[in-house]
Amino acid sequence: MDNTKKIFRAIDADAMLTSSADLRAYLTGFQSTFGFVYTDAQESVFFTDPRYAEAAKAALKSEFIGVEIAKTEETVFDYIKSRKVKRLAVPFERIALPTSERLRRSGFKLIDSMPAFTSAMSIKNADEILLIQKACSIAEQSYQELLGLLRAGMSENEVAGLLEYRMRCNGAENRSFETIVAFGKNSSVPHHAPCNDRLYHNMPVLFDFGCKYHGYCSDMTRTIWFGDDVDPDFRSAYEAVYGAHEYAIGNIRAGMTGQQADSFARDYLKDRGLDKFFTHSLGHGIGINIHESPTLGPSGKTILQENMVFSIEPGVYFEGRFGIRIEDSVRMLDGKVLSFMKAGKSLILL
Amino acid sequence: MDNTKKIFRAIDADAMLTSSADLRAYLTGFQSTFGFVYTDAQESVFFTDPRYAEAAKAALKSEFIGVEIAKTEETVFDYIKSRKVKRLAVPFERIALPTSERLRRSGFKLIDSMPAFTSAMSIKNADEILLIQKACSIAEQSYQELLGLLRAGMSENEVAGLLEYRMRCNGAENRSFETIVAFGKNSSVPHHAPCNDRLYHNMPVLFDFGCKYHGYCSDMTRTIWFGDDVDPDFRSAYEAVYGAHEYAIGNIRAGMTGQQADSFARDYLKDRGLDKFFTHSLGHGIGINIHESPTLGPSGKTILQENMVFSIEPGVYFEGRFGIRIEDSVRMLDGKVLSFMKAGKSLILL
Repeated sequence: MDNTKKIFRAIDADAMLTSSADLRAYLTGFQSTFGFVYTDAQESVFFTDPRYAEAAKAALKSEFIGVEIAKTEETVFDYIKSRKVKRLAVPFERIALPTSERLRRSGFKLIDSMPAFTSAMSIKNADEILLIQKACSIAEQSYQELLGLLRAGMSENEVAGLLEYRMRCNGAENRSFETIVAFGKNSSVPHHAPCNDRLYHNMPVLFDFGCKYHGYCSDMTRTIWFGDDVDPDFRSAYEAVYGAHEYAIGNIRAGMTGQQADSFARDYLKDRGLDKFFTHSLGHGIGINIHESPTLGPSGKTILQENMVFSIEPGVYFEGRFGIRIEDSVRMLDGKVLSFMKAGKSLILL
Repeated sequence: MDNTKKIFRAIDADAMLTSSADLRAYLTGFQSTFGFVYTDAQESVFFTDPRYAEAAKAALKSEFIGVEIAKTEETVFDYIKSRKVKRLAVPFERIALPTSERLRRSGFKLIDSMPAFTSAMSIKNADEILLIQKACSIAEQSYQELLGLLRAGMSENEVAGLLEYRMRCNGAENRSFETIVAFGKNSSVPHHAPCNDRLYHNMPVLFDFGCKYHGYCSDMTRTIWFGDDVDPDFRSAYEAVYGAHEYAIGNIRAGMTGQQADSFARDYLKDRGLDKFFTHSLGHGIGINIHESPTLGPSGKTILQENMVFSIEPGVYFEGRFGIRIEDSVRMLDGKVLSFMKAGKSLILL
């Protein structure tokens, strides 16, 4: 079943309208920066501007009755009115206030389509799995190349740029999010933005990165020690995070909630007195977006299911000293967790 | 006058609340991925999560009475209720439907703060001008380095990654938008996304790129001919676009509307029979965001004023053949347009 029909059947509305880029890509299989997908029980129409019209006509799946030119919302709203639609489904989280007010003034009763998208997009089909697999293998290969190029004196910005460049050389169309490279104590900030701090010997380096391949994301984190005189506290914390990572991957099963999955890593770290330094969730879904459903965390209520793709990323952070995170992108296969990543995760002293 | 007071005085409300990253950066001078700025006649408070608290306390300007920890919207909404606020200003364009409904259910009457931000942010102060100047000079220097590294056989993705890498090496903290590199006929699509097409001799190459420096953007486009056997149609179109670019820069004055500014380039191209191939606007404001006010285009009503920063980017596009765009980031100084870019714009055969 195609994605427009899948979403439309999951909502209770006369029609649905979708204009945010990720959801549009999910419905059409076509990447664009502007456009609207209209779907009702009879038809799906892709409205876009002239520069995409030709490519869209060639790429759209057969269930679309056509591509229409629309430079503004008004053209689309007029079309919807002509279809006698009353109950219109839109993704509430993605609709800004002025648009929702225009829709209501046009007489539509708005219904939220976002839960249907969130749920459907969390289960990947075989094509999507292959694209994510490729995005993972590009990221992993590029990271291996990067390790051979790291030199003392490089800045975090430079290393982040070099890693992104390697991913592009290896076939990625883009990064999947803003690459994190953190030297030394900067690694203790989970979402550190790379700066012009320089790399010196005998400090930890944390890399959190991923790329996009045909619209699908990978996500991976590794932490290494640059030098051979490793801080014993760093080494023991590393072993704990590595253990938590492996323990979670080995024990998470389909049918558990995101909360239960998270607890494997959290309890493992708690047994070692480290859970209070694990300040974020264990993981998140990955697909067209870098953060999707399910959430693997203390508040994760979603049930993990076959062919969900998500991250497993335990970490511990010691303010002003260092942080460690080890992350794989994984899938749920035959009820168990299978990583997309092939490389070992033992501590690297570079 | 600080930016919180500037915006608050321009709106008619009891208080204002701002949570989108760009507007938050404008108010606080501090970059963060999560937070809320609350301002009323007596005080400004920055709500953020624990990981930013320390850095925010050190960086915030004196008009902020403090940094509060808030992991969710509810904490902030409760605080606002405790201040007896009735009329609350929020930027409508940036507020998603669920948030606006929660705010209304909490009893606030919502007022739009976006026009005040748009207007204030369009006029840059001396510090902002210096940061944009630096972002421009990094972009320009990196582009010069890139030209020396271009080789037949490289892919668009690879060249885009290499340019972004050079910008990082030269001190940029990030790209300011997704770099466009377009070989051959791909250049005829104004917003082409780089792909794995390869560079061959005797084709045009279009580069549209920029970087961020301390939160401020640059934006620049150049089109070259890779090879020495240049298509005469390309050369004559290039001369027309170059002429339109120079004519616009030379004639735009403070006090004109964005529409009048646009018409210089459009009329110049019309005299050469090319206006129908100039399918976008002449320019857009540049600052914390890559697209801001003013718009220089057929519908541009904003009056151009001293210390506005914007792009001048005429272009012509011949479907299936080639496209040409020449873009500088410029400022309005002493009533005239002054470019931030130093490099010549004559046609380069590489």
